[in-house]
Amino acid sequence: VAEGSAGRPSPQGAPRDAPSPPRGRVLLGRGGEFDLIRRFLAADESDLPAEVHLGPGDDAALLDGGWVVSTDLSVEDVHFRRRWLTDREIGYRAAAAALSDLAAMAARPVGVLLSLALPPAAEVDAEEVQAGVREAATSVGAVVIGGDLSASPGPLVLDVVVVGRAERARLRVGARPGDEVWVTGALGASAAAVALWERGDEPAQVLRAAFAHPVPRVGVGSALAALGEGALVALVDVSDGLAGDAGHLAAAGGVRVVLEVGSIPVAGAARTALGEAGALEAALYGGEDYELLFASRPGAFERAAAEGAAGLPLTRVGRVEQGKGVWLERVDGSVVPVARGGFSHVEEGP
Amino acid sequence: VAEGSAGRPSPQGAPRDAPSPPRGRVLLGRGGEFDLIRRFLAADESDLPAEVHLGPGDDAALLDGGWVVSTDLSVEDVHFRRRWLTDREIGYRAAAAALSDLAAMAARPVGVLLSLALPPAAEVDAEEVQAGVREAATSVGAVVIGGDLSASPGPLVLDVVVVGRAERARLRVGARPGDEVWVTGALGASAAAVALWERGDEPAQVLRAAFAHPVPRVGVGSALAALGEGALVALVDVSDGLAGDAGHLAAAGGVRVVLEVGSIPVAGAARTALGEAGALEAALYGGEDYELLFASRPGAFERAAAEGAAGLPLTRVGRVEQGKGVWLERVDGSVVPVARGGFSHVEEGP
Repeated sequence: VAEGSAGRPSPQGAPRDAPSPPRGRVLLGRGGEFDLIRRFLAADESDLPAEVHLGPGDDAALLDGGWVVSTDLSVEDVHFRRRWLTDREIGYRAAAAALSDLAAMAARPVGVLLSLALPPAAEVDAEEVQAGVREAATSVGAVVIGGDLSASPGPLVLDVVVVGRAERARLRVGARPGDEVWVTGALGASAAAVALWERGDEPAQVLRAAFAHPVPRVGVGSALAALGEGALVALVDVSDGLAGDAGHLAAAGGVRVVLEVGSIPVAGAARTALGEAGALEAALYGGEDYELLFASRPGAFERAAAEGAAGLPLTRVGRVEQGKGVWLERVDGSVVPVARGGFSHVEEGP
Repeated sequence: VAEGSAGRPSPQGAPRDAPSPPRGRVLLGRGGEFDLIRRFLAADESDLPAEVHLGPGDDAALLDGGWVVSTDLSVEDVHFRRRWLTDREIGYRAAAAALSDLAAMAARPVGVLLSLALPPAAEVDAEEVQAGVREAATSVGAVVIGGDLSASPGPLVLDVVVVGRAERARLRVGARPGDEVWVTGALGASAAAVALWERGDEPAQVLRAAFAHPVPRVGVGSALAALGEGALVALVDVSDGLAGDAGHLAAAGGVRVVLEVGSIPVAGAARTALGEAGALEAALYGGEDYELLFASRPGAFERAAAEGAAGLPLTRVGRVEQGKGVWLERVDGSVVPVARGGFSHVEEGP
């Protein structure tokens, strides 16, 4: 079923002409095999019991009472390599990535469950992995509420389940033509670290930290939502690269998203490491920045106030139009669909 | 960290003098290393937010609004071997095992999330694995509400998250001296199938089915609870063998459980395959029967009515006394602690 990364696990290839697929995801065939995964997850909404308010397809499921649940795999040599990270960082990073899915629902983290499959003795310090998971949970006010443990005959595998609560969850759906598209923080540093490691270099500390110690943007969603009715109308996290996650907003809203290349907040250290073009590729297609991407009604908030509420830089990176897919407005003013890749949301261009 | 099964994954060794450890669990050192896992999961209850009614330590976490959440790993060559099962059975079994944790809380299954790490292409039919998970979910009225997907550089790994709801969850804690101890169904067939496979034989169909197609006992808990106030005062599922799970009841209740060897409902096909002594070992220490084990106040229900409500045979297998640990009352009337093993709950004997 899986092709490419399944047989040859690699967190990332170097930037190429075609965008890299999102790291950590199986490269499924363009047609039937990716569809089968979507079919599995896309339950017929009419089948959902009333107490499940939202099933698969968003960043997390939404249950009666405002409970939000998501699960996130981290597999050695697919999502990370052990030589890049300490055991504690492996745990922290897996949990932070999972917690980002709660941020992407504007949910408050409550609990974390860790399923841990441990390779043969002495290779991994399980206590350190667990300490990293607990560190990430504690950093956002969550507690460990369960887990499972097994041996693994091969890689270290973590599956982190996160449970949160949202008075009013924000979904991927909601963007409409005329909306602004905003992103928190800066992009591309995590992918730049991976690119350097994979070519045998050691990334600068700021790049390494972006990969090893991402900060889930919890609290940002609710802070923005509090700024006014239209301030936050659709929300995802940036885990698959800006282009990929803009594709989620576009697909969910039945709209097209135009990203303005000159506005994308590419991390300065990524520029230094990869050059202008390479860093832009990393921001668009690299993934695992764990920032938030959201749509706002035009002029729904004042940037200074919003940045104060979010505690982070906010950058308007594009706009919502009628159509579908993700498009890039180049600095010369031309508008082109994002390059086609193995990633279906990106294929919905023209 | 892990010893034994981590370096040499094996779903089960043949029955030995010492009880086999629960299959599918890492053999952790007797002291510090098992403790560290427990420390990780045993959050200080005072740290739990009010909306988490029960954290780690039971079969599942219990959240505000009656929501119940648990997660369960199934790792190739630890929990199963691919040559034993079809891909669909691998999915079914992993989900059924996870759903059993909801049964063990007397919770009604609502949703399932599947994290799936797939080995290199063409080895596993992912659609069949998914179909098996969906089959198990559907069989108990649950729907698929999410999941994650990754390549695996080694084994097939499934982590199944189950979400259920209980008006009144039943916990491990609650048994007190004088209570009766009951079990649903028959025990030992699943472990007998594994023992046969591991020695190169093919198990009889009924044994194979016990391993490949366990039926989570959902609904049994609430049916029993409805029979009267004291009918169901403490509840676990039998996933670690009768002795191991009786140890959970004993530890949680601060009591000792005396299992009456002559009363244990050993599966007939397990007797045929392993002989009397081997089948009893399988029932006590083999695990993965996914029946329910519970304590009742003396005479709190009438068996015929209870069996009608549960839709299953019920067998009184023992009694609760002051003390700690799990003890066996042999047919000759002598009472001995269960043999020591790698399993801490069993070590709490005298």
